[in-house]
Amino acid sequence: MARIDTCSHCNPAGQTVVWADSQCRVVLAKEAGFPGWCWAVWNDHVRELSDLTADERNYLMGVVAATERALRRTLAPKKMNLAAMGTGAPHLHWHIVPRFEDDSHFPAPVWGQASRGASQRVLPEHFSTTLTVAIRKELEGSS
Amino acid sequence: MARIDTCSHCNPAGQTVVWADSQCRVVLAKEAGFPGWCWAVWNDHVRELSDLTADERNYLMGVVAATERALRRTLAPKKMNLAAMGTGAPHLHWHIVPRFEDDSHFPAPVWGQASRGASQRVLPEHFSTTLTVAIRKELEGSS
Repeated sequence: MARIDTCSHCNPAGQTVVWADSQCRVVLAKEAGFPGWCWAVWNDHVRELSDLTADERNYLMGVVAATERALRRTLAPKKMNLAAMGTGAPHLHWHIVPRFEDDSHFPAPVWGQASRGASQRVLPEHFSTTLTVAIRKELEGSS
Repeated sequence: MARIDTCSHCNPAGQTVVWADSQCRVVLAKEAGFPGWCWAVWNDHVRELSDLTADERNYLMGVVAATERALRRTLAPKKMNLAAMGTGAPHLHWHIVPRFEDDSHFPAPVWGQASRGASQRVLPEHFSTTLTVAIRKELEGSS
């Protein structure tokens, strides 16, 4: 497996992994003010989505969609945002971000300027376990 | 086909469509300072990626990956960025953004604060035609 010593996604530390297999993992990112923000990280050090084979891409996007559905079912956000950038850290990972009308940037992208103070919204207790169960259920039910 | 009168993606005007079929279209967005920025728009008014069936999702992401590969081959960017947000305009569309080291936001997300002036980089002549040919070639060659 391709691994780069200096890459933070190849050498994760202190991450809350809510789902994983040999190909990818879903991490509850705990970004302040954005409860439920997850990453879906491809384990191998791959640069772009278009570097995956079609089978690998379909598999990863199935995990992204299952995580999105699990977050929608558990948190009922107003909208979901998805992004794969990694411009400074080029290891393929998806941001899967539930958006709420009271979040600091709504309806603008979370990477822009805030239009209000940070949301005080907090995750339900034991949410990482709830999310693990919800993602598994979505993946079992997916076609 | 689901269509909403007030949705700009359901009622496109003045777009440079570089590739299209009955399910989706690729538009050269002509965002100032970001040459080659494309959108891949699902024609139907669908809110989230996870609202598509697995077959639809795989198809759309195949078009996104083909567009990404076509932009990499024709423009040789430093990195590609992908995002589906639509927080204020909830009609599923992907931003497919070639990033260059001289762009105004590199390596930060394009939706944040600029760290330098707009890039003077321009697209090669007849680029929309070049891109159409490149996307077709990628889709023909894709598995």
